Amino acid sequence: MDSKTPSASRTVITDLVLPSETNPIGNMFGGELLARMDRAASIAARRHSRRIVVTASVNHVAFNKMIPLGSVVTVEAHVSRSFKSSMEVYMDVWIEDRESGLKSKANEAIYTFVAVDEMGTPVPVPPLTPETTLEKERFVAALRRKQLSLVLAGKMKPEEATELKALFE
Amino acid sequence: MDSKTPSASRTVITDLVLPSETNPIGNMFGGELLARMDRAASIAARRHSRRIVVTASVNHVAFNKMIPLGSVVTVEAHVSRSFKSSMEVYMDVWIEDRESGLKSKANEAIYTFVAVDEMGTPVPVPPLTPETTLEKERFVAALRRKQLSLVLAGKMKPEEATELKALFE
Amino acid sequence: MDSKTPSASRTVITDLVLPSETNPIGNMFGGELLARMDRAASIAARRHSRRIVVTASVNHVAFNKMIPLGSVVTVEAHVSRSFKSSMEVYMDVWIEDRESGLKSKANEAIYTFVAVDEMGTPVPVPPLTPETTLEKERFVAALRRKQLSLVLAGKMKPEEATELKALFE
Amino acid sequence: MDSKTPSASRTVITDLVLPSETNPIGNMFGGELLARMDRAASIAARRHSRRIVVTASVNHVAFNKMIPLGSVVTVEAHVSRSFKSSMEVYMDVWIEDRESGLKSKANEAIYTFVAVDEMGTPVPVPPLTPETTLEKERFVAALRRKQLSLVLAGKMKPEEATELKALFE
Amino acid sequence: MDSKTPSASRTVITDLVLPSETNPIGNMFGGELLARMDRAASIAARRHSRRIVVTASVNHVAFNKMIPLGSVVTVEAHVSRSFKSSMEVYMDVWIEDRESGLKSKANEAIYTFVAVDEMGTPVPVPPLTPETTLEKERFVAALRRKQLSLVLAGKMKPEEATELKALFE
Amino acid sequence: MDSKTPSASRTVITDLVLPSETNPIGNMFGGELLARMDRAASIAARRHSRRIVVTASVNHVAFNKMIPLGSVVTVEAHVSRSFKSSMEVYMDVWIEDRESGLKSKANEAIYTFVAVDEMGTPVPVPPLTPETTLEKERFVAALRRKQLSLVLAGKMKPEEATELKALFE
Repeated sequence: MDSKTPSASRTVITDLVLPSETNPIGNMFGGELLARMDRAASIAARRHSRRIVVTASVNHVAFNKMIPLGSVVTVEAHVSRSFKSSMEVYMDVWIEDRESGLKSKANEAIYTFVAVDEMGTPVPVPPLTPETTLEKERFVAALRRKQLSLVLAGKMKPEEATELKALFE
Repeated sequence: MDSKTPSASRTVITDLVLPSETNPIGNMFGGELLARMDRAASIAARRHSRRIVVTASVNHVAFNKMIPLGSVVTVEAHVSRSFKSSMEVYMDVWIEDRESGLKSKANEAIYTFVAVDEMGTPVPVPPLTPETTLEKERFVAALRRKQLSLVLAGKMKPEEATELKALFE
Repeated sequence: MDSKTPSASRTVITDLVLPSETNPIGNMFGGELLARMDRAASIAARRHSRRIVVTASVNHVAFNKMIPLGSVVTVEAHVSRSFKSSMEVYMDVWIEDRESGLKSKANEAIYTFVAVDEMGTPVPVPPLTPETTLEKERFVAALRRKQLSLVLAGKMKPEEATELKALFE
Repeated sequence: MDSKTPSASRTVITDLVLPSETNPIGNMFGGELLARMDRAASIAARRHSRRIVVTASVNHVAFNKMIPLGSVVTVEAHVSRSFKSSMEVYMDVWIEDRESGLKSKANEAIYTFVAVDEMGTPVPVPPLTPETTLEKERFVAALRRKQLSLVLAGKMKPEEATELKALFE
Repeated sequence: MDSKTPSASRTVITDLVLPSETNPIGNMFGGELLARMDRAASIAARRHSRRIVVTASVNHVAFNKMIPLGSVVTVEAHVSRSFKSSMEVYMDVWIEDRESGLKSKANEAIYTFVAVDEMGTPVPVPPLTPETTLEKERFVAALRRKQLSLVLAGKMKPEEATELKALFE
Repeated sequence: MDSKTPSASRTVITDLVLPSETNPIGNMFGGELLARMDRAASIAARRHSRRIVVTASVNHVAFNKMIPLGSVVTVEAHVSRSFKSSMEVYMDVWIEDRESGLKSKANEAIYTFVAVDEMGTPVPVPPLTPETTLEKERFVAALRRKQLSLVLAGKMKPEEATELKALFE
């Protein structure tokens, strides 16, 4: 399979925050943002693989910024590294102020998807070739994240997670 | 503030998987499960703190099991450790087979919430006293997870994360 | 078929009241509560019968208490009596005050379900053996309610509804 | 307040049955129909009273007919009797076959609403003057139903429910 | 096929405007009204043709009146002219003031539907015979609108659109 | 006010077609697409004006292509011309085939929005300076469309609609 670039899977979802999506102090529910990100990321993974894709895992997500009612929220997703059947998808979430027009970063998040056939069996996906500096950094870091994921799932011994272990030395 | 037990915040959400919540091969979207877990966990955190709560972070979540259309999904959440203003909420997700009646574990997940006042300012929450063996294990592990979270956010140096570091030795 | 207990079908749905579910004075729509109760009750009936179940009837439901926006509403359902193919499901609805943590009873409701096969034909369901005093009271009263239902549907003559008639003497 | 006719509050909701509203054998959830009927009935009560209205109770509802996916469902509601602050709303539910165009009765249902002010305090509503034979029958029967409701709620002794008692003699 | 009257396809959808359907100044989203009108119009077209129908086009729609949160909105649709396989559906949208009970016209809109078989192939529909003066006016004007539609789609030369051209002379 | 370019208001909404959004032959409801386009267009208008915006009108929309269940639909919106308080927004709708990855044009649509203050009063919006050839064509054609809109609303005499009239000569 031919290699693809991150920009080939780039997916943008822009939407408002509505009243039924906010908590008592008028900020977007974390769960609603998690669901929107899953939609954006799954479309990016599907564009990379041209296959049915299923969510395999969600990396640690921090909600650093409250997102008020009426905000315009933009989720930009692209595949950041592909493995045998799985793809890591990196997302940047932006919110913008209506009056000033300023966009600010609200979140980053990383989901992993597996490409499957109609029976749910994993199938191979194309390799990914990062182009920009940022894409290259994310590509390299994806390997460390995969090791952490395997360690947390008990499928890799911590001492074998070479890239990850280096972080603590 | 008086200490509370995990069972005082225990929250159960039971619901079916509907057609609009499934992917092309008939399994529940990961994003839909993430959103249901956020609802269950936020109610547990609110029951522990009796305050408005906001999602602060979501730990690594692995989706090990496909959840087919028509399944009954049960999310059971309880606060597993409380810190100054934040609470870790641990969730067990079960699905059951209609014909055999067998329940099987589909997922575990861990979300963190912060208690806030009407202005969004963090406020103190009661301490937690675990009772059962499982609750005690989760209570202890919560500290390691908090350190990982701080390291990943760049708010703690990896070498200071004593409990976490021990895992890799 | 082996008899089952009410606790074997016990089903709990906990959820918040959102803005799109409230009327102009900020209280939950009756119709939204009726729909949530149908979901909880149908899962309880399915757990008892391990069959597809369809709503057959809803008993008189009184809405005695307004349920304000932002409330946590808990619907607890269990099968209270089973007949040939039908099951009466009894529900207790609780709301809780965030600040005091006090739970108060908002409603009781009774729905009846019929177990069916894939073609929609009724199939037999297991008998029910009540255990607690409350479960036994509900089990006995279920027969009176079934008679009232048959009388109202014109399928039983009022003078034959022995248990029901006794109420008016 | 001037008396009004049932036709002045007549309200029609027509809608399709969508996939997310059906059970595993492709029929509309009872809870979904209960919610649609609450919407229709509340608009009828509001048209009669020109006030905010809240659902007070739902009479026994029997689901005699399965309503398949893709059906057109028509709910026709009108106020059938008004009391001091409350109004009984009677509904006829029709489904129609796309190919033959035939309409058939799926359900009847009766909900009661109370008119309230902005504080939720009950306020008086106009009297109702039935016009057609059917409207007159429903008007008369509404009194019996109100007595049954009071008896079931423990607010009237069965032996005082004159109209209701007559049914069993 | 026997001719039908506009009243045979008359379809009424009545519903409230809920918080999740309104913009920051509390008025119904245009898109929500467009979607409700599509539902009403498709049911009218289905009633006329007794076939599966798909939206073919939407005429120019002007939103002249803001529709505030909590309004009762009534969409009345009827087929205004039928062509070979297509049907023009005319809609009147009313909103009413709760306190005065006054209904006022909010919009008119015109959608066109095509009747199709299970494979999506267009099939013939019955002719329409208008009865009232208004129905006759709409029937005549429908031809001009069809010409405009064909001209805008580049399927008819402007100089051949006899009825339409007359408007500019 | 400084002039802005169309690209400054460019808004992309990407999303899947879910089962509850499709008709009996598995294609997306026209009304659902109209609502998604309203969301995309309103965000574009808001980005251009930095004001609250309300839908003023929808131009003729033709649905030339069926959009099957499971499709990825991309709506790209940008302001194509601004007038005193109103903005025309032009949209291109694309669907893509999962297996081949091919994108094809499904629709074009044009909505008009008015910028308003908190009281709903129209306020001035910045002028628009088109850059690309396509943007310039759409900018010029927008004037003809505005005339057509005024003629249809009875606010301009057909013979005064110079640009529009030229089309028929």
